[in-house]
Amino acid sequence: PAVGLGVRCRSSMAAIGGGDKEQEKKQAVGGGGCSVKDDKGIVSYWGLDPTKVCKEDGSPWKWTCFRPWDTYQADLSINLKKHHAPVTVLDKMAYWTVKSLRWPTDLFFQVYFLLYFVLRTYACNMITILYMFYVLVQRRYGCRAMMLETVAAVPGMVGGMLLHCKSLRRFEHSGGWIKALLEEAENERMHLMTFMEVSDPRWYERALVFAVQGVFFNAYFLGYIISPKFAHRVVGYLEEEAIHSYTEFLKELDNGNIENVPAPPIAIDYWRLPPNSTLRDVVLAVRADEAHHRDVNHFASDIHYQGRQLKEAPAPLGYH
Amino acid sequence: PAVGLGVRCRSSMAAIGGGDKEQEKKQAVGGGGCSVKDDKGIVSYWGLDPTKVCKEDGSPWKWTCFRPWDTYQADLSINLKKHHAPVTVLDKMAYWTVKSLRWPTDLFFQVYFLLYFVLRTYACNMITILYMFYVLVQRRYGCRAMMLETVAAVPGMVGGMLLHCKSLRRFEHSGGWIKALLEEAENERMHLMTFMEVSDPRWYERALVFAVQGVFFNAYFLGYIISPKFAHRVVGYLEEEAIHSYTEFLKELDNGNIENVPAPPIAIDYWRLPPNSTLRDVVLAVRADEAHHRDVNHFASDIHYQGRQLKEAPAPLGYH
Ligand SMILES: [Fe+2]
Ligand SMILES: [Fe+2]
Ligand SMILES: [Fe+2]
Ligand SMILES: [Fe+2]
Repeated sequence: PAVGLGVRCRSSMAAIGGGDKEQEKKQAVGGGGCSVKDDKGIVSYWGLDPTKVCKEDGSPWKWTCFRPWDTYQADLSINLKKHHAPVTVLDKMAYWTVKSLRWPTDLFFQVYFLLYFVLRTYACNMITILYMFYVLVQRRYGCRAMMLETVAAVPGMVGGMLLHCKSLRRFEHSGGWIKALLEEAENERMHLMTFMEVSDPRWYERALVFAVQGVFFNAYFLGYIISPKFAHRVVGYLEEEAIHSYTEFLKELDNGNIENVPAPPIAIDYWRLPPNSTLRDVVLAVRADEAHHRDVNHFASDIHYQGRQLKEAPAPLGYH
Repeated sequence: PAVGLGVRCRSSMAAIGGGDKEQEKKQAVGGGGCSVKDDKGIVSYWGLDPTKVCKEDGSPWKWTCFRPWDTYQADLSINLKKHHAPVTVLDKMAYWTVKSLRWPTDLFFQVYFLLYFVLRTYACNMITILYMFYVLVQRRYGCRAMMLETVAAVPGMVGGMLLHCKSLRRFEHSGGWIKALLEEAENERMHLMTFMEVSDPRWYERALVFAVQGVFFNAYFLGYIISPKFAHRVVGYLEEEAIHSYTEFLKELDNGNIENVPAPPIAIDYWRLPPNSTLRDVVLAVRADEAHHRDVNHFASDIHYQGRQLKEAPAPLGYH
């Protein structure tokens, strides 16, 4: 309850042996030339004790890629219908960039035809790769969600990195936006880590992700340098599409076309779901996250539209 | 005390009106097309309430670029003398890369001579720019510290970003290293934000930072792709130098060559220093941070030296 307010709460989880840990650290660090061996067998003079943490119920925390204080309850009450009506030319460009990647493929293409088609035109341009990516991932919803998340985690990282460098260069505060965007990237990466558990990527899907990441990273990097206004708007619309996709996913789950398997343990820990949760609960949490990203990115674009800089408006931190 | 154990504690700070906030958010989000106006006057349909937080004593939190839960007490007990003796060729290359940027300049050059020298060879190579940077910042310790921090915040961000992209591409967990490196970058940025308060960069120093960041970012980016082992080792040695520099800074403070001004408010909040702290306390905290970065980076390099990947050893999170 209290922990779901957007302020994630560290206090509800206990660090094992707080007092001991400091002592251990001192021994390890002050021990001169001795080698320190950690659990995984990495022997090093610099070997640092991994911080030992446990869950609320006292059982050890089994994830190293995120910690109890990174977990939160998704705000499922968020309005899923909000939409930024494109008004300016730039808005419309952003909108159609996203749309054009979606709808024709919904109508025209079948997966294996396209795969064949694209392999024939292998030295192909960016649009073709993105198309191919899009259509391929139409095939299986679980896998589709997973692959889209590999792309979704890029903009936050690129934006955060560029703002970080700008903050350093200009000796300026960031207003919290660096952190907000990096949090978004981390959140998207956790989506991926979750869907990985319920879907197994095939070799050509891995190859596709590789190609698409290369193209998209550079395109977004350039786009963000040229016009952060446009870049955030594009992401806003992408998130609107993501909400739509997850709504479809939910329908398939309710129809029984996709099996409503138990939620993977990582998702239960990350979103603090009850132990008997299912894939449906996970998708609901993920969809709420996407709605939050939509808000943050449209908001960021709006700030730029008003001729201001992001740092002038405090970033919505911890707003998943 | 408890908060200084490396596990940073959110519970000691209160969020104003937890219950109200959720309601406010619902109103704002569910309000359809109404505009929401925030404190800074950014009007937007997407306007998100900045999270309202306050300090332990109930006064409002005045920083937007970091939050109470990002603060910590520096572990001043860390061993400052640890050093990785370079053994392999790669180690020695890393060591001399760092050293060669340091000592000749200590002996031979005077600042304005060099400035003249470098401006003459303006379309100069990377080494010259780094030299110039190094020598210029010799001049004033406060300013020097500040400028070095603009560079110091780059490797963590680059490493974190590359690991993030790798994690996405390979559908792999990161073992917490993405976060650890991004935390390092953020910590370094906070060093910069602190020294900015006690020193005012001149126009040519800003220009220099601009050039050096461009060169260093790309060099480190490439270096990290080619050999993370080497890259982390270089940072380890850079941090050893940073410890040395801050030790010199402390000597100058104790000699009275640099005035021991009161600590800037941002530093008092960030490192949870007592209200009457001085610049000396800040430098002590910063030096302890650098020692932690040294450990983390040498450790990371050691992991690679053992032919393993970072994700196999849990990252030391929250280890400033
Ligand atoms: Fe996502
Ligand atoms: Fe998203
Ligand atoms: Fe630093
Ligand atoms: Fe450092």
